[in-house]
This record gives sequence, structure tokens and C-alpha cells, in this order.
Amino acid sequence: MLVVMKAQATPEEIQVVCEHIEQLGFRPHPMPGAQRTAIGITGNQGQIDQGNIEELSGVAEVIRVSKPYKLVSRDVKDEDTIIRFPGTNASIGGRDLAVIAGPCSIETREQAFAVAEQVAAAGAQFFRGGAYKPRTSPYAFQGLGEEALKIMAEIRDKYGLRIVTEAIDTEALELVNDYADIIQIGARNMQNYSLLRAAGKKRKPVLLKRGMAATLEEFLMAAEYIMSEGNYEVILCERGVRTFAEHTRFTLDLSVVPAVQRLSHLPIVVDPSHGTGKRNKVIALSRAAVAVGADGLIVEVHHQPDKALSDGAQSIYPEQFTQLMDEAGQIAQVLHRNLPRSIEVSEHASATR
Amino acid sequence: MLVVMKAQATPEEIQVVCEHIEQLGFRPHPMPGAQRTAIGITGNQGQIDQGNIEELSGVAEVIRVSKPYKLVSRDVKDEDTIIRFPGTNASIGGRDLAVIAGPCSIETREQAFAVAEQVAAAGAQFFRGGAYKPRTSPYAFQGLGEEALKIMAEIRDKYGLRIVTEAIDTEALELVNDYADIIQIGARNMQNYSLLRAAGKKRKPVLLKRGMAATLEEFLMAAEYIMSEGNYEVILCERGVRTFAEHTRFTLDLSVVPAVQRLSHLPIVVDPSHGTGKRNKVIALSRAAVAVGADGLIVEVHHQPDKALSDGAQSIYPEQFTQLMDEAGQIAQVLHRNLPRSIEVSEHASATR
Amino acid sequence: MLVVMKAQATPEEIQVVCEHIEQLGFRPHPMPGAQRTAIGITGNQGQIDQGNIEELSGVAEVIRVSKPYKLVSRDVKDEDTIIRFPGTNASIGGRDLAVIAGPCSIETREQAFAVAEQVAAAGAQFFRGGAYKPRTSPYAFQGLGEEALKIMAEIRDKYGLRIVTEAIDTEALELVNDYADIIQIGARNMQNYSLLRAAGKKRKPVLLKRGMAATLEEFLMAAEYIMSEGNYEVILCERGVRTFAEHTRFTLDLSVVPAVQRLSHLPIVVDPSHGTGKRNKVIALSRAAVAVGADGLIVEVHHQPDKALSDGAQSIYPEQFTQLMDEAGQIAQVLHRNLPRSIEVSEHASATR
Amino acid sequence: MLVVMKAQATPEEIQVVCEHIEQLGFRPHPMPGAQRTAIGITGNQGQIDQGNIEELSGVAEVIRVSKPYKLVSRDVKDEDTIIRFPGTNASIGGRDLAVIAGPCSIETREQAFAVAEQVAAAGAQFFRGGAYKPRTSPYAFQGLGEEALKIMAEIRDKYGLRIVTEAIDTEALELVNDYADIIQIGARNMQNYSLLRAAGKKRKPVLLKRGMAATLEEFLMAAEYIMSEGNYEVILCERGVRTFAEHTRFTLDLSVVPAVQRLSHLPIVVDPSHGTGKRNKVIALSRAAVAVGADGLIVEVHHQPDKALSDGAQSIYPEQFTQLMDEAGQIAQVLHRNLPRSIEVSEHASATR
Repeated sequence: MLVVMKAQATPEEIQVVCEHIEQLGFRPHPMPGAQRTAIGITGNQGQIDQGNIEELSGVAEVIRVSKPYKLVSRDVKDEDTIIRFPGTNASIGGRDLAVIAGPCSIETREQAFAVAEQVAAAGAQFFRGGAYKPRTSPYAFQGLGEEALKIMAEIRDKYGLRIVTEAIDTEALELVNDYADIIQIGARNMQNYSLLRAAGKKRKPVLLKRGMAATLEEFLMAAEYIMSEGNYEVILCERGVRTFAEHTRFTLDLSVVPAVQRLSHLPIVVDPSHGTGKRNKVIALSRAAVAVGADGLIVEVHHQPDKALSDGAQSIYPEQFTQLMDEAGQIAQVLHRNLPRSIEVSEHASATR
Repeated sequence: MLVVMKAQATPEEIQVVCEHIEQLGFRPHPMPGAQRTAIGITGNQGQIDQGNIEELSGVAEVIRVSKPYKLVSRDVKDEDTIIRFPGTNASIGGRDLAVIAGPCSIETREQAFAVAEQVAAAGAQFFRGGAYKPRTSPYAFQGLGEEALKIMAEIRDKYGLRIVTEAIDTEALELVNDYADIIQIGARNMQNYSLLRAAGKKRKPVLLKRGMAATLEEFLMAAEYIMSEGNYEVILCERGVRTFAEHTRFTLDLSVVPAVQRLSHLPIVVDPSHGTGKRNKVIALSRAAVAVGADGLIVEVHHQPDKALSDGAQSIYPEQFTQLMDEAGQIAQVLHRNLPRSIEVSEHASATR
Repeated sequence: MLVVMKAQATPEEIQVVCEHIEQLGFRPHPMPGAQRTAIGITGNQGQIDQGNIEELSGVAEVIRVSKPYKLVSRDVKDEDTIIRFPGTNASIGGRDLAVIAGPCSIETREQAFAVAEQVAAAGAQFFRGGAYKPRTSPYAFQGLGEEALKIMAEIRDKYGLRIVTEAIDTEALELVNDYADIIQIGARNMQNYSLLRAAGKKRKPVLLKRGMAATLEEFLMAAEYIMSEGNYEVILCERGVRTFAEHTRFTLDLSVVPAVQRLSHLPIVVDPSHGTGKRNKVIALSRAAVAVGADGLIVEVHHQPDKALSDGAQSIYPEQFTQLMDEAGQIAQVLHRNLPRSIEVSEHASATR
Repeated sequence: MLVVMKAQATPEEIQVVCEHIEQLGFRPHPMPGAQRTAIGITGNQGQIDQGNIEELSGVAEVIRVSKPYKLVSRDVKDEDTIIRFPGTNASIGGRDLAVIAGPCSIETREQAFAVAEQVAAAGAQFFRGGAYKPRTSPYAFQGLGEEALKIMAEIRDKYGLRIVTEAIDTEALELVNDYADIIQIGARNMQNYSLLRAAGKKRKPVLLKRGMAATLEEFLMAAEYIMSEGNYEVILCERGVRTFAEHTRFTLDLSVVPAVQRLSHLPIVVDPSHGTGKRNKVIALSRAAVAVGADGLIVEVHHQPDKALSDGAQSIYPEQFTQLMDEAGQIAQVLHRNLPRSIEVSEHASATR
């Protein structure tokens, strides 16, 4: 259920409505918009008498939301969500495209800095690197853990790049939340509801990857789990679905980008590296992702992919990344969007958000 | 097996090699290239003694082709195949993008001309329209048959548009071959080998749609069937594969475009209309198709989609097609390609090829 | 639309209703049942005034059928269709299980007879063997054609086995119809509508294999194409669908068996050979197919699978087939069904139907 | 790597080998067999010099295991793993079939006891019921938590049924481990590696459901995660994979049962309730699962499915469960297996393991 406030409703009136909802045993989610505020109501204990709410001061109307996702939906918030990173010019979801680049795993300080320097020079605003790696084999390299997080914090300090890294469980989530700017939830954990709820209790943006067999509705419901806990900064990420096709590791489903954008106000980015699993297809699919209207890209880059401890076959070379940025930037313009080519950190900004 | 001729080999030497191959009970397929000619050898009666062939005058080397597809492969012909349409500036497979547009079915003369006029004005070079429709239900509209073919021939005469239409069986193939410029083989017939062979005996280009569950290898092997009969002008077409995803009718697999281009010299176009099944996704996926590197688009356009006898939900309005052409043209430039915006028919050219 | 006749309606009354339907420009399909006859009406020219038909003598009621398939549906014919083979005790669709066995391809007279002798001895009632093979490669063995059909006709004469073989196109269909007892339509041709219609004009039973990406509705609609031409003896066949799974060549979807049986009166058999692509899984999946309630099995058997020209890896040895028959027969009893262990040919029966 | 001990090796010799492996920085996993003990070696720090190990007393040979899964593999342990439940005649993995039955969720004490009484009477040895439910929507019923675990412990005391229930996260795992006899890991958590490792540290059997898009290798690797922590009692469970098919909620992949049994010594059971999502298909697919060779079934039963808080549409009625047990038992006999029809608890056995 959704309470739409009048354009001229005061903060006090909004407050009164929220309290009333809480007294009824539900949870209010005020979503300020450009014109007016809407208040989403969540909770599973049955039906509310909407008549009483409509009588409250400042309320324009009460709408029943029939879709299973609510906070995620454009019914609740029509305007696009733009996630900003204070102290920088970086953002995700607006006119500017966001590019997140870096190695699959942080392997050593040297490797991480070598890649970071090159992706920063090519214009990426965000740096990705795995500290905790979900690997198919228990005997494979599992990541450097907190050591990797510390290396990435240094990279933020030196290059201004904002840090994106995966939390594979609630324990890792605490550390990722301490060090990173964006918490990534991986495809294999898209329906790990305990982790989603825990991420929803944090106050950093969450990049949520689509599960390899997730329908659009399941994808949006996973985001709803995060939002239902009060964290409204969710970035969706298409990374390929599992099909019979063998020429790529997964089948990148670019049609999900416009499909998400019709239903949800949340930004959506595309991962052509995992989506194809093949270096020689990353640039072409990156162009296509920008052309289809994605709000950004997340790309694996390694200065020595043949020596990478994980995902080397799908990591591109730094010079390929430069080409990718160039072509993506040109295509962005066709869509009247912009690809900012370097991060600007304001003078007095603290390094962390 | 592949016979690579020397750069300076004469037509007579090539002829002698071909005759030698025929005498051995095999079929030679000479493929002229910019530098030199290669001769593919097909046939299933076992192994050839390559030593004897290597001794023939003008032969540079004999190569065993290990892939199951041969004539389709870049091993046999490295340069991109460009299909030209005599008497016009239209082509498929080179620097110029090809756009094929029109209604799902030819319903009436008025409908066909109304759509043709608008797609011609927007710059399409090819007109598509179903004369024979493969429908899931035997009780659904099955197309106007030869009457539709005649209407499309008139459209070619009036607008210069080259005609693409589907042959659903060997009977329809004869008529389609008489009237059309490109013979389409539909997704449901991609492994109808008798029809593929029959199309291989014609001398008009064949647009071959990928089956909805076809692997890349099966797709290329279907083209090999056509080529093995001597028709080397095959245009591949990605039109979506069947997956669990429900937000589109099929899942458009754009990664197959660079995958085809690595392995084969044949052009490949994309059908975003069948690939999504939804009007509101056609423009976005058309942009993505051009950005990924496709050689063209095939798009369903209808002036009154709500009244269409088939596929109305995925047909775009003429004004949307104009927007699509505009955006596709701009993205083409990023890839150093060109989208010619109107067909030019040379003065003395006959209307048919 | 469906006209249900009264239990005591006479043949003359039924005849009058059929003629009336034809005069209206539609096609009547009388389906006699144990209690009473129903008359299916097909044709795509819009709506009929059902009031007039209800006034005809002998008519109990007129029912609109909302499903897209009509003749296939239990709405039109509630009782199971049983296909009998005159002159023998073999049948498909009733209490008795049907087992169809034989090599993928007829390779030589010796091979065919060797396998036939052993499958007959093990109790199969039907012999399968490919005369025309739909192969992924144009250069692979394509079958012996009419020669194979003649060999199979001899096998029928000698062992009494009824013959099942595939028609890959309308040309092969004529010959298959001349020699075989059951016309097989392969998975790759499930939506080759011209071939389906042509098979619908024959008067021999048609075994229709499910396409590798066909939904249940598409599968039933393909059968509807055959039935709409007047051939009501269609045997459906599940042979595996294409999924991401790699441990079998296709994923055998046994749940489609009870799903078909709820919606349709047609018999359905299972092909565990193509459905798994692996010899070591054929017996286990054959047991499961009988247990799920299938009306029969179609199994590839070869006396020398390692030397088979096609599908050797999924062909079982004759001694494995004997084990399969034994286990299938025991499981059939749990379902109160029977697996007749040898074909009986009545004394005066002609060898062909 | 695998150390195979001589048949007559003493416990002391085995101990020495294990200590030697630990000193090298690896983890030894002794797997006693009927003839002799094998010691699996896991760890990811590179290569071991196998020569030194071969010199140790009692060692027969050292084998490199090339498959990515090791402890799961028949290479390491050829004999089938049988999981026994002390104090009862129940077991999973041997000649006896195991049947696990009960409601999707524990809703109330009354509901749980009503179902338990009926499934016990029908002969189930194990009771399933959700205490923690992974739901697509954050607003749906999430289970009663520990209260449900206590109810199930009472059911064990009263009926002797062994308890199977899902741990959705590491927190729930602790409680499930305290109360239940088998810890279930759900399909959505099959690649939640932190949860798998945590379950591997427990000493109760783990029932691991296949992820809805998991390949066979990924499925076995998930089990390897559990075993690599020292818990060797893993029961695999097929519960349907996601495909394009719409007639069932998932496509039950029965071919994975013989595929698992070739590669692994672990038992595998089948869940026809989630695998079909439809009550009217559960009995047929249960028969098929036993026929294909599964080691057991896990089935949702509810006395009032229309009132169930979750999964009502796929829960069968108690009288259907009785029919299922009857038919499954008969089919088991065809495979020379046995379906024990009631649990026997030995007099002095404690209720918990």
C-alpha cells in the first residue's frame, strides 16, 4: 500500500502519517520525490483500513499496490533513483554513466595498484576487486580477505576511485561495510535472504547481481528484501543467465535492462565480463549494454590476465579498457548521456562517505 | 579439406583442380578472395589423398579443416562475405548496415503499401512481409500466399525496396524465388534439411534464422547445408532463444554476433522484434544490436499494430521506426560503419536481380 | 466448437449435422465415443451461430472450446485414444504398453535383421530404423532411403514386427507411407507445418516427437495440425528438451507425460535413447518412463553399437534390451498395465495394414 | 590426491599417514572402506611430493585425482555411503528406500501433529517441516523459527520419526543442529559457501538440494565443500531445474540420479513436490523417481493443502501419500530394494542421535 502525500504536505504531516502506520503494526517507508512524498507501507499481517489514513492531514490518496514488489516499483516512486557519492562527481542512475573496473580478485598490493592506476587513467570512477571470492571449488583461491579491503582503501585514497567489493556472508559484510563504498551481493547469493536483509540494514549502496536463473520478478523481489530493511540505494546488475548456449559462459540478457527500467526506479548496470566469460566479447557487449540504456558497466580488467588467480580468461587488458571507455562514451552521447572520464574529489571531502 | 591456390594461380589452374576433385567423387567449392582463391572440398565418402592434389599446378597448400562446418568457416574464406544487390546501392555484410523492415504479414495491398511507403521514407533498403506464415495453430491466419508475393513485387517496382520473405516449404520456395530478392528460412525450419538443401540450389541470397534452441554450431551447420549445394550467399539472423526468462518472449542473444564473426565470414543480422516480442523493447535492442556489431536489422513495422493479423504486439509504429533509424545510424558511426538512408536504384537496372 | 450428440443419435442424424457444418464453410470431425459421438468443428473464418446447430435433430448440446487445441483435447474426446494394428495383438494407448525398438539407422540388411531378430525375441512389438536421417552435418551419413524401407518391410514379413520410421520431408513421406506402419515426424520437424499437414492427409498413425524447445501447448498444437487434416491417430513422443544440463545430451522431461494425459486423449510414449544420449542411462530412464505412466517406449538397440553409423553412444546392446523389457514389464504391473512380450499376427492378416 | 592404504594397514599406520599430511600443511580425510581405508588429501597450496608418502608404512599407493571433486568421488570411496540413524532401523543410501514427508511449513502444533500422525501411519521414517522459510517476498510468512523446531522435536518423541528441516543461514544452522536429525540446505543456498562450510563443521547428516540452475559438477562441488570440512554424511537431493517448460514449476531432472551414482558414493533422493509444483503430478513422478533408482523421496504432505501458508498447490493429501507409499514400495521391489513401512526405534535409544 502506498500513501501519496499532497505536494504541499509538511514534514510534520508526513511524520504523523508514518507514526500512524507504525501504530497499526506496519512499517512506513517515506520516499521523497521532486513533486511530493510517497510513503510505502510494508508488513505481512493482512489488510489495513485505508479510509482512516486518507483522513489524515496532508494525504492526497492511498493506493493499493498489486505487484509483489513495492518499494522497488515505479508505482511507489516514479522518478529514477540516483545514487550519489558525496565528495565526488560520481553517481549511478542519472544522466552520467558509471563505470566500475578492476581485477576479479585482489591478488597482491602491486597487482591491485597496477590495475587501479590504469583504470583510473582511462576514466573509471569506481574500482572493483574481490576480497572474498565465492569459488565453485573449496580448494581454489578464496581471496585475501581484510588484507584486500585495506589495499582497496589505499587505492581510494590515492586515486579517488570509489570501491566496490563483494560480501559473501554476514561476517564479510561487516568488514566490507567498513572499507568499501558499495557492497556487492553476488549472483549465487541473490536469494540468500539473510544476507539481503543484513545488507538492507547497512547505509551504503548495494550492488545486487541477478542470479543465473532468476526471473525479473525474483530479481526485483531480492532488491525489495534489501529495501524493506530501509536501505533504498540498490543498484541492480545483469551478469548473464544460464542457458543451453555454449559459445559464451552465460547468456547476457540485455533485454532485462529496459524491462527493469519500466517497472523500477532503481539503476541497473551490466557486467559483460561474467556475462560472456570471454575476453574477446567484452568490448562488443559493453557497447551493446550502453546502447540498450544501462546506467553503467562493471568490467574485469587485469594487467596480466594470463597470470590472474581467477577469471583471467574474461579479464581485458588495460589498453582494451581504454578502447571500451572511448566507444562507450561515444555511444552514451547518442542516448544523450554522458560518460565522465575521471573522478573529481572535492577538496574537503573525506575519503570515505 | 581446403585447397589454397597460389596468389598468381590462373583461372585455368583453378579449373583443373576443381575437375580433379570432381573426378575423385567430391564436390569443389571455389571461393575467390582478394589475395587468392581457396577451394573447399565437400562430400562424405571418406578420406582423400591430399598429396596428389598438392602436386597440381598453382596449388599452394592443402589444409585439413577440423571444424564440422567448412564452407561457412573463416578457415576456408577469411574475408567477410558481402552480398550485393545489382542495380542498387544496397548490400549486406560490408561497411554499410542493412535494414529490413515491414509488417509481419502482408494482409492487404493497402496495408502493405502504407507500411512500405513509410519504411522507405525512413530509409530502409529492404522490405519484409510474410506471404506464408508458420503459425502455431492450424486455425490461425496462414498468409495470402502468391497474392502477397505479387503485392511485394509491386512494392519493389514502386519504392526500389528489395524484398525479403519466408519460404515455409519447398513448394513456397519456388514462388518466393520467383518474386523475392532474399529467401527467408524461418527459425522453426532451421533444421528442415530438405528445405535448406532446396534453398541451396537457388541463386538468390538466403536469410537463415537461428532456431530457438540452436547452438552456435548447429546454426553454422544449417548454413553449411545451404552452402554445400552451391549457394554461398547466406545471411545469418539472430532472433532470440528460448530460456526461462518471462519478461520477453525470447531472450535475444547478442553475444552470438561476435561469436559468429570470429568463426565465419557470413554476415549476421538481428531481429529485435521476434527476439523480444514486445514493441516497447524493439528500439533499445535495435541500438544494442548495431552496437554489438551486427551487419543489419530486421524489424516488424505496422501502421496499425493493434489491427495486425499477426505479431501486432511486437510491431513498432512508423514514427518509432524513424527514431530507430536515426539512433541506429548514429551508433553505426561509432563503429565506423554507415547506415545508408535510402535505396538508390541505378537507372537501367531491372527491378529484379 | 464441439457438438455433443445425444446417446441415442443415429448415424443419419450425425451425418446431417456434419453436412450442415460443411455448408457453413467449416470442417466437421466426428469422434465416436463409448457413450455418444462428439463432432469437433474446425476452421478459422470466425464465429458460428450455435443456436441453429442446437436445433438439429439428435444434438444434445454445443460447447465452445476455449483451448487453442481442439481435436487433441479431452474436451472433445474424453476417452483415451487406442491405436490398433489390424491383424496383430499390438496396440498403443490402452492397457498394453507398446515397445518400439531397433537401430538408429538401417545400415545393411544384415545389421537390420540381426537387431530385429533380437528385439523380436525380447518381446518388442514394433521395429524402428532410420531410412532418412536428419543429420546436423550435410556430410554425414544420410540413410539408405527406399532401400532401408524395403529391408524393414521384409522384417515385418519375417518377424511380424510393425514398422516405425521417420519421414523427413513430403517426398519421403510418400514412401514411408507405402512401406511403414507408423510414420514418424522428428523433433526437428515438429513445427514443419507443411509436413504435419501432409501427414494429416495420410491414413497411417503418426508418431510425433516433441521439439527440443517445445512447450506443452506447442507440442499439442503440432498434433492438432495433423488431426485437423483428418488423421486422428497421433502418438506423442517425449524425447528430451534442451537445457543447461551437461550430464545428458538432452533433459528427459517425464513430467510431460502426466501433463499430456490430463489435457489430451492421445497416447504418449518416451524415447530414453535420445532423451539421455548415453547408453548407461537408457535402462534407468526406461523404468522411470513406464513408472510415470507412459504408454510405451521407443529405444535404440544395436548389436554392435561401437560400429553404428549414427547414435552408437546411446544405443543399448540386445542383452540390455532384454533386461529393460523384463524390468519395464514388472513396473507395468504395478500400474495395472501389461507389457505383451511378443507380437501375435493373426493367421489371415495381410502383412501391411 | 588420494592415499590408498594396504588392506592389512593398522590404525596406527593410518594415523601416521594423517599426521604426515597435516605436517605438510594439508588436510587428511580418512575414508574407511570394506576392504581398506583410503585417505583423501585436500588443501589448495599446490603440489605434494607423493614419493615420500608412498614410502610410509602401510601405504599401498598414492593416486592423483583429476576430477575437481575429490571426497565426493567414487575414486576416493567406491562403496556407497549409507547414513544410519542410531537407535532406529532408518537409513539412507543402502538397500532400503528413505521417505521423508511432512508439510512445507510448520504452521501450528495441531497442523504439524495432524500431518505427522498420518505420514507415520503410512510408513514414512522421516518428518520434514519448515521452521525457517526462504520466501521470494520479504512480506510472506517466514516460518515459526525455534517454536517450529520444538514442535518437531516433540513429533520425534511421539512418533519416532527422524526430523529434517532447513537451515537458511548460519544462525538458524545452530538451532537446526540442536533439534533436528538431518540439516537441510535449500536450493537457493546451494552455492552459499559459508553456509556449506558451517554445515560441514557439524556432525549431523546434511541434505543438500540441487540449485535450480546447477550443473552436475557444481552440485557435487557444493557437497565437496561440506565434506572438505569433515562432515562426510551428505545426502544429495534433485528438486527440479529451471527450463522454458511451463507445465510444471520446475523440470524434474531424473537423469541426474544415475549420473550422480556413477560419479559419487553419496546417496541421492528426489523431491517431486518442488520438482513439479503440482499436486496432480507428485505421485507419478514419485514412482518414476523410485524406478530410476533414487535412494529416497522427500514429499510435501498437508492435511488441508488449501489452507497451507506455503506450497499448498504442490502438497498432497494424506490419503494420496498412502497410495504413493504403496506404489513406491512395489516399484522398489522390482529394483530389489525395500521400502520399510514403519520406523522402529530400539528400546534404549535416546530420542536424539
